[in-house]
Amino acid sequence: MFKEELNRIVNIVDEELKKLLDISDKPSILFDAMRYSTFAGGKRLRPVLCVSTCELVGGSIKDVLPVACAIEFIHTYSLIHDDLPAMDNDDLRRGKPTNHKVFGEAIAILAGDALLNYGFEILIQYALDNPKLCNNILKSTKEIANASGARGMVAGQVIDILSENKNISIEELEFMHKHKTGDLIKAAVSSGAYMGGADEDTVNKLKCFADYIGLVFQIKDDLLDVLGDEKKLGKKTGSDLNNGKSTFITAFGLKRSKEMVNELTLKANEILDFFGTKGNFLKNLANYMAERAN
Amino acid sequence: MFKEELNRIVNIVDEELKKLLDISDKPSILFDAMRYSTFAGGKRLRPVLCVSTCELVGGSIKDVLPVACAIEFIHTYSLIHDDLPAMDNDDLRRGKPTNHKVFGEAIAILAGDALLNYGFEILIQYALDNPKLCNNILKSTKEIANASGARGMVAGQVIDILSENKNISIEELEFMHKHKTGDLIKAAVSSGAYMGGADEDTVNKLKCFADYIGLVFQIKDDLLDVLGDEKKLGKKTGSDLNNGKSTFITAFGLKRSKEMVNELTLKANEILDFFGTKGNFLKNLANYMAERAN
Repeated sequence: MFKEELNRIVNIVDEELKKLLDISDKPSILFDAMRYSTFAGGKRLRPVLCVSTCELVGGSIKDVLPVACAIEFIHTYSLIHDDLPAMDNDDLRRGKPTNHKVFGEAIAILAGDALLNYGFEILIQYALDNPKLCNNILKSTKEIANASGARGMVAGQVIDILSENKNISIEELEFMHKHKTGDLIKAAVSSGAYMGGADEDTVNKLKCFADYIGLVFQIKDDLLDVLGDEKKLGKKTGSDLNNGKSTFITAFGLKRSKEMVNELTLKANEILDFFGTKGNFLKNLANYMAERAN
Repeated sequence: MFKEELNRIVNIVDEELKKLLDISDKPSILFDAMRYSTFAGGKRLRPVLCVSTCELVGGSIKDVLPVACAIEFIHTYSLIHDDLPAMDNDDLRRGKPTNHKVFGEAIAILAGDALLNYGFEILIQYALDNPKLCNNILKSTKEIANASGARGMVAGQVIDILSENKNISIEELEFMHKHKTGDLIKAAVSSGAYMGGADEDTVNKLKCFADYIGLVFQIKDDLLDVLGDEKKLGKKTGSDLNNGKSTFITAFGLKRSKEMVNELTLKANEILDFFGTKGNFLKNLANYMAERAN
């Protein structure tokens, strides 16, 4: 049931992402590079969160789809830039060569820039074309823009870069992850809620849920880097340790990190009790994030 | 008269840029890097075009100011990324070390990302806060977003990168400059016009004007790289030749390039005749762009 529902959303999102990147303009290498990373095997977690939160509060997938796709483009840009030689210098992501390995560093930087920009192009065009939805689209866009900006994702990435080969405090570790991965996950949820017409109280409830699953996602990421299966992950494990990175494992140990995943997933589930059986899909999604193997 | 009017606008824009970047959040190095390049001696050409076009069609500087500043942030991001080692690998801009020379490559990439994103954050917040201006803000934002994206500025930069040490056709040279510098200059003009409440006919007239001055700007840039004064320019001349770049000079020669600057400036002036004496400031600005020494 959950897997079918998940696939339904992923397929619709994938179709729309393909349409949005079906561009034959010059220079073709730029659009090739944008497509390459967008279709490099991502789980579509953020668009799925966005769509299913919208449906939870009574909205339709049709209305939220451009917003969900814009988030995925912005997420993809962040991965391309994170992998660059000047940043994490990663050769592989999800078992495939990273963007700069295929297209060169200059095109990878520009493809990232273009994807970030394209996210906003889509959102603005959508707001202009739909006066009735315009206010919800703008509220959603604000959530996304703040999450991806200098006080959000970029701040987290800066702290990540500055922290290499340093012991950082638990507060700094949490600041880093809250912004680097948490903020865009939260924006996926809150923008989905706004697109479904949710009131501020409901949006705030769902933001709490998003805070928990954002942490679950990150702790799980750190656990997989120690315990994961390289084949399933599509990259080498142990890279955090090799890069001298502070993680939830170095801060809390393996046992406590696993407990935290379980405790936070439970708390995320409890918030969704408010929505009755309608919350089941998101509960399952939270559990799926806690149990994932890649 | 012209210089006083120019300074009036530049000062107001500078004040607003300072306010918008007066941010003491963590991580401070990120905001330092964003401020460094924003206040590295730019001429504020794009915000001045935006503000003065808005005033030309009857709008106020107060209404257009956030839009003008957003454009300057997006322009600044493009300079930071253009200068990166993987791109043009420039050590100096306007006589000062480039962003990555001061802050390192990773922070420079991220400061650029953050400035692009911040441009949109400002525009979206402005649209949300001003329901009466919302439609004009969205139309302006669309102009800007399309100009800075994969079919605009980024496309031009990709062609620039791909063209190093190659002879490119005049069509490709024009495609490159139309997008790399022309599109954002045009968006500065058209967004200013929309913020002043101009109708589509007027916007289209002003876009023609912008096409001419965009070309003037670029040909003049190429001329200065051959004939300019290194002290005034704040960088070494001859870099296009050394980098094997195709320019208007290599395509048309010095004499014809100078003639083109004059002819195009004249055409830009003619379009403004439509606006009577109100067009004088923009006429003077076009002439100033044609005659500038840096």
